[in-house]
Amino acid sequence: MTDTAREAAYVAVDWGTSSFRLWLIGRDGNVVAERRSGEGMTTAARTGFAAVLESHLAAVAAPAGLPVLICGMAGAKQGWVEAGYLDTPAALADIPAAAVRVPGSKADIRILPGLAQRDAAAPDVMRGEETQLLGAASALGGGDHLVCMPGTHSKWVRLSGSRVAGFSTFMTGELFEAIARHTILSHSIADAGAISGDNAAFRAAVARMVENPALATSQLFSVRAGALIAGLSPEDAKARLSGTLIGLEIAGALSLVAEGTPVALVVSGGLGALYKEALSAAGLSATVIDADTAVRNGLAAGARALWSL
Amino acid sequence: MTDTAREAAYVAVDWGTSSFRLWLIGRDGNVVAERRSGEGMTTAARTGFAAVLESHLAAVAAPAGLPVLICGMAGAKQGWVEAGYLDTPAALADIPAAAVRVPGSKADIRILPGLAQRDAAAPDVMRGEETQLLGAASALGGGDHLVCMPGTHSKWVRLSGSRVAGFSTFMTGELFEAIARHTILSHSIADAGAISGDNAAFRAAVARMVENPALATSQLFSVRAGALIAGLSPEDAKARLSGTLIGLEIAGALSLVAEGTPVALVVSGGLGALYKEALSAAGLSATVIDADTAVRNGLAAGARALWSL
Repeated sequence: MTDTAREAAYVAVDWGTSSFRLWLIGRDGNVVAERRSGEGMTTAARTGFAAVLESHLAAVAAPAGLPVLICGMAGAKQGWVEAGYLDTPAALADIPAAAVRVPGSKADIRILPGLAQRDAAAPDVMRGEETQLLGAASALGGGDHLVCMPGTHSKWVRLSGSRVAGFSTFMTGELFEAIARHTILSHSIADAGAISGDNAAFRAAVARMVENPALATSQLFSVRAGALIAGLSPEDAKARLSGTLIGLEIAGALSLVAEGTPVALVVSGGLGALYKEALSAAGLSATVIDADTAVRNGLAAGARALWSL
Repeated sequence: MTDTAREAAYVAVDWGTSSFRLWLIGRDGNVVAERRSGEGMTTAARTGFAAVLESHLAAVAAPAGLPVLICGMAGAKQGWVEAGYLDTPAALADIPAAAVRVPGSKADIRILPGLAQRDAAAPDVMRGEETQLLGAASALGGGDHLVCMPGTHSKWVRLSGSRVAGFSTFMTGELFEAIARHTILSHSIADAGAISGDNAAFRAAVARMVENPALATSQLFSVRAGALIAGLSPEDAKARLSGTLIGLEIAGALSLVAEGTPVALVVSGGLGALYKEALSAAGLSATVIDADTAVRNGLAAGARALWSL
């Protein structure tokens, strides 16, 4: 028996729409081995979820029968086994017990549920972010917090202590792609490179949205008009598009909380710098929490609750 | 010589991006003959603007040398002859004199300019709608008006008497197409048919945007979430998407005028009913002016000013 096999306590998996991440966690809570791949739900729905998991468990030489805790889209209706939703308002501590066991496996494999907000005017769902929240909440302390989790579908969560009071999903990342590729703005953006948060056009677009969000789709057209009559560069055009969508999201999230509510940003990679600058342009500063660490901490909290590890 | 040839005074052309409309106008101001085709700027840029115009003049047996007044995208940089812009604030009566003559033709063919708003924070342009405004303004009387011209790129114009104080373009129609086709909402909308303005989901989406426009991109995601957890039908999903974008546009336009400013809707076809219902859901009623008539009246006003017809 190798050291790895002796040390391993459980396996943690973050299984998103287009990404798969697995960590073999030791008895001391440390990461023994890690795997990352593009075999997200979309791929695994074709090739088989069990087979994808098995191949990665074999690659890290995980001992047979080790418990596996999964969060994310593997629990969606079109995923591996549907893990349903906890309804808001929800206590984060109640998430692990609502995990669903994958049938037909000798090992104890469970998938954590998502959160659902069953509000007729603002129905909403999340799947995966609830586990990041579970891992991040302890770093925030008590009281009310507004937690921003940027991405294709950015989530803004209203936390009251370790309870999710409510949340709102903004389609920011997906709208950016659809607008940049499939509207007349594509001509103005052309081959612009990555956006820098300190771009003045980006910050101005954010600030204008916080001031008057109703003008969002007009400010989008100003990307085109600015290129036509005001010499707006492709870089600034792209920055104005991004700043408009991110600024609108910030304005929307702020409209649902009391002024002065502390903001936390749970993010990894390049989006973090962009959102920090956007929040600053909106007159806010945020506690930054690494999203990768948060999801691993959330899975660890789940594993401890489920298996007394 | 036929009666038509004897009676004809000038030719009016509305030349859009994807549509071409021509009217042969008699000395008494009536329409002698009409042509409609899909040979808009996009097509004519390939096949030749002069050839497209000639073929339609021949089809209505227009006498040689008749003056022709054109508005719309034929005057864009990528059109036939660039007709530039009048800068706002602009008097509508100044539009005809700024028309540009097409060189190399025996007939007097002129293209009307667009309007440009050279405002660093809100640069904007229109081309074609200024002629509708010229034709619609006389029906509105004096004082301040907010004029809505719905479409792919909806224009909301702030008129002060017959002067354009400013305007805002909202990308409503184009965003609707891009979002319905190229985002996750496409699954929720599926094969839904045409939206009816009296759909409750449409009216509710408009009203919520007027109340809190900052939540626009979250309300868009609620189309998906509503389909997932609240049984939102494809028809209601499509209606909510449309109501969100139209409601946001209304909220934006209203944010720039004094409360109680009279609203006029310049529109033709099915969009008219939808916008009337949207305005009603926002607590507004509007004077409705037919857009086809307005553009013909605008071209007639231009022809009278240019050629004393």
